[in-house]
Amino acid sequence: MPRKDVYHRTVVDALLADGWTITADPLLLTYGGRDVYVDVGAEDTISADRAGQKIGVEIKSFVGASDVHELEVALGQYNLYRDILSEVEPDRLLYLAIPLRTNDGIFAAPLGQLIVRRQQLRLIVFDEIDARIIQWVP
Amino acid sequence: MPRKDVYHRTVVDALLADGWTITADPLLLTYGGRDVYVDVGAEDTISADRAGQKIGVEIKSFVGASDVHELEVALGQYNLYRDILSEVEPDRLLYLAIPLRTNDGIFAAPLGQLIVRRQQLRLIVFDEIDARIIQWVP
Repeated sequence: MPRKDVYHRTVVDALLADGWTITADPLLLTYGGRDVYVDVGAEDTISADRAGQKIGVEIKSFVGASDVHELEVALGQYNLYRDILSEVEPDRLLYLAIPLRTNDGIFAAPLGQLIVRRQQLRLIVFDEIDARIIQWVP
Repeated sequence: MPRKDVYHRTVVDALLADGWTITADPLLLTYGGRDVYVDVGAEDTISADRAGQKIGVEIKSFVGASDVHELEVALGQYNLYRDILSEVEPDRLLYLAIPLRTNDGIFAAPLGQLIVRRQQLRLIVFDEIDARIIQWVP
């Protein structure tokens, strides 16, 4: 199993505070005999507007030296996991969780905007200090 | 600039043998003030059926311990570069160059087939011993 992201606990706490139940940590996906692990699987069994909604959340802290490189790595994992989910569990939505400073950094820059738009990324922006979700995109 | 892939020279030789002219090594792409480097830029000025065709080639040797991880990394770079090319040079086709053993390995497996199909990857399969191109996909 992969090493946990530095913000793993922060995002789990933020999801719990937002009303989600953590159902897998990590979430194992298997396709054609190959295993991959999404950081967190969660489900909302309470809220009226998202009752029964299941999500997978890949957490990326963007702490590396190059934010473009971090974006490439995140994009590769996200697209691979999304393609597998579309086959094995198409009703589970995949999100990339990023800290606020990353959302205000490369994701606010033209390159980040281009990638979010063209790859149709779903984002969870979290406050890395308060462990709270700030924004769901879209 | 990034470190060159272990098969960089092999793929350059294979492209030359196939009638391509190397026009950039590496190929710099700039978008919104951010620079990325595709391994090779090439153009065919000779062949009747592909005269003037320009390509970008990202080379991936898949020598790491986990071929799924290598696939994620390749996919992230490919999608980022393709999205930038679509904005800055839409007539240049982007290819991922992979050795024959990788094509016969993870790319022949259900996961690889799924990714190629859903991400609409363009592949160059090369013989890593003879430095020749074996297949263009599609």
